[in-house]
Amino acid sequence: MAKKNAFYAQSGGVTAVINASACGVIETARKHKDKIGKVYAGRNGIIGALTEDLIDTSKESDKAIAALRHTPAGAFGSCRYKLKGLEENKAQFERLIEVFKAHNIGYFFYNGGGDSADTCLKVSQLAETMGYPIQAIHVPKTVDNDLPITDNCPGFGSVAKYIAVSIREAGFDVASMCKTSTKIFVLEVMGRHAGWIAAAGGLAAEKESDAPHLILFPEITFDESAFLAKVDDAVKQYGYCAIVVSEGVKNKAGEFLAETGTRDAFGHAQLGGVAPVVAQLIKDKLGYKYHWAVADYLQRAARHIASKTDVDQAYALGKAAVELALKGKNSVMPAITRVSDKPYKWKLGEAPLKDVANKEKFMPRQFITRDGFHITDACRTYLSPLIKGEDYPPYKNGLPDYVKLKNAAAPKKLQDEFSV
Amino acid sequence: MAKKNAFYAQSGGVTAVINASACGVIETARKHKDKIGKVYAGRNGIIGALTEDLIDTSKESDKAIAALRHTPAGAFGSCRYKLKGLEENKAQFERLIEVFKAHNIGYFFYNGGGDSADTCLKVSQLAETMGYPIQAIHVPKTVDNDLPITDNCPGFGSVAKYIAVSIREAGFDVASMCKTSTKIFVLEVMGRHAGWIAAAGGLAAEKESDAPHLILFPEITFDESAFLAKVDDAVKQYGYCAIVVSEGVKNKAGEFLAETGTRDAFGHAQLGGVAPVVAQLIKDKLGYKYHWAVADYLQRAARHIASKTDVDQAYALGKAAVELALKGKNSVMPAITRVSDKPYKWKLGEAPLKDVANKEKFMPRQFITRDGFHITDACRTYLSPLIKGEDYPPYKNGLPDYVKLKNAAAPKKLQDEFSV
Repeated sequence: MAKKNAFYAQSGGVTAVINASACGVIETARKHKDKIGKVYAGRNGIIGALTEDLIDTSKESDKAIAALRHTPAGAFGSCRYKLKGLEENKAQFERLIEVFKAHNIGYFFYNGGGDSADTCLKVSQLAETMGYPIQAIHVPKTVDNDLPITDNCPGFGSVAKYIAVSIREAGFDVASMCKTSTKIFVLEVMGRHAGWIAAAGGLAAEKESDAPHLILFPEITFDESAFLAKVDDAVKQYGYCAIVVSEGVKNKAGEFLAETGTRDAFGHAQLGGVAPVVAQLIKDKLGYKYHWAVADYLQRAARHIASKTDVDQAYALGKAAVELALKGKNSVMPAITRVSDKPYKWKLGEAPLKDVANKEKFMPRQFITRDGFHITDACRTYLSPLIKGEDYPPYKNGLPDYVKLKNAAAPKKLQDEFSV
Repeated sequence: MAKKNAFYAQSGGVTAVINASACGVIETARKHKDKIGKVYAGRNGIIGALTEDLIDTSKESDKAIAALRHTPAGAFGSCRYKLKGLEENKAQFERLIEVFKAHNIGYFFYNGGGDSADTCLKVSQLAETMGYPIQAIHVPKTVDNDLPITDNCPGFGSVAKYIAVSIREAGFDVASMCKTSTKIFVLEVMGRHAGWIAAAGGLAAEKESDAPHLILFPEITFDESAFLAKVDDAVKQYGYCAIVVSEGVKNKAGEFLAETGTRDAFGHAQLGGVAPVVAQLIKDKLGYKYHWAVADYLQRAARHIASKTDVDQAYALGKAAVELALKGKNSVMPAITRVSDKPYKWKLGEAPLKDVANKEKFMPRQFITRDGFHITDACRTYLSPLIKGEDYPPYKNGLPDYVKLKNAAAPKKLQDEFSV
């Protein structure tokens, strides 16, 4: 096997542990210098490949690369950019081959979710479709936890832990205040299409009296009167009600609840999130004083409270991707297989990319209680191991000591510019 | 000195470390059983005293009390309730004396902010005004950091750490995404009157290019055009702009910015927070894609990322309050004195309650840069030690193992009810 260089890039929304996968890829590649030359990282995902904006990761020290394991977000820049089909935009693929050839790239590692898996799949077919020999391996990543085949997705476990910890803490707060002040707390979480993250908040409630008392899922059409009755019950029984609401909750008309309530001074919708809408509804109908929070990027960037399971898996998947490449594989994604729930055991397998790309895994209905407002024991059994363990970053001056890489550009070898 | 029982209560908005002060009070009292009998906690602050709803903390194990040190919020319930003056409502004071007498209470420990210090001051005067011998000691607590005399207030350091960590993490996230997606991130933080918490976000920016690039303080009137110019500069220079905004920011007309932008479907103001207003303004005027977060209670309940300095001080102040009582003191508050900045050293002194009650300490103008959008080195020197060190709670099943006390009520001794 002739020695080839590798290309690695990050794609889509970033997570607390995508850099742990980058760390796994680069550290493993460095251990196989006989087969893998340099690892070039795409600056801002696939855009870096198209524009020949390659970061020479060999300029980074072992220590800096090791620090990626505890650093959130995408160290090389990510992108929201999907390659079109070969027929629609052959120029893009010709350009990729040109860049790969110029830099002797034979391995392509793409770190992202379902859309990105589609990009990776298209690259993996370059040998077949355009005669350029490349091995493309996808490294799974998404806080949405919606990739098929893999038991769970790196990035999700840490968001899940953050949300469960946060609603537990806020629940303790409201419980203290509810006698004379706030009785309602609403936490808005990510998940436009699937309720995995909202469900994770449910882990904080080990007893019925614990926060959160209610969860609103995108999978369940919002039923205002049933919801208000449940809220009132909780306040009457426990003195307060803590609610986790997914940004993707819709009403009977199929509209996002977030867009139904708020208008800015000019009448534009979608200024606020769904949390204030739900909180205000409760105030209007039941009269309870509320507080609400929108975690937004804080939830997916919260490396300070990352799940150890998640970090370990993210690293292992990066490592496995390189090992699959060394075994001569193409068009695959390393995937997590759950061996047992208690004790939690997992191993890595592999999935063909054609079965991964553009496919979404939804939350099973049996993970949501019959009334639609909480999670079932089956859901707990699935989710619980994913938030297990802490993996604290080092601190300096009271703050996490995250690494910023030098990200030195590899000298360009091509004359022409390519605009994306 | 005849053996007397003690009363302890929590007041006002809770914090990540107010229970650490409770732990300091109760553990220290338990070490002086010759002088202090039981510690009764007021259920929901002073209301517990007025309604004779006393929690017998002797029913809690040493282990449970020790766990208060790592448990956020108010374990006995807090309240927003201010005693009126003696002239206005003598009945309240007579009732307090009746309850204290019935339960042989000679020590009164009140854990709260400026308003609560006023309550504590009034109780401390009961000996003088109504002939009931009591020693009242205030234990400082407030995330607002606005109590006078004490160098800083327990509860603030942990919020400060949470905000600095969060904006650093979100900054890393946006930096990854800004090439093709989000360019603006706005984090709203607490602080209706003073910008201490917003200022703490500034600690995350160790270089000019670091997040947050801009801070909006309640002390500085919002100047839209200067602000927008700064935002645009940051995006052009760094690719993105991360902003910390205090909920208390006001415009030139003296209105809260939070109330100027949002209207619900019925035209009501104040549905949203200030973060979406600022984000939407940037979108409207500069066209940049944004994300925003409102941390709300998450910030003050975040015991999982508490500052070790803060936890240590909260505990020490609880302990010191009991020791002051044992020395025969009345109408005082233990206070933190800063001995040196680097290395950070502090010790405890005491402050007369009359100098503490109803007085606010504002942020010095020299802590804010001349342009009004960031913190100065003097501010960093002050804030930095307050977020130093981590003090992680224990975890169980991936979640912080916070204690819920039994909170058994002490049998009532009085016949009559008292309504508050």
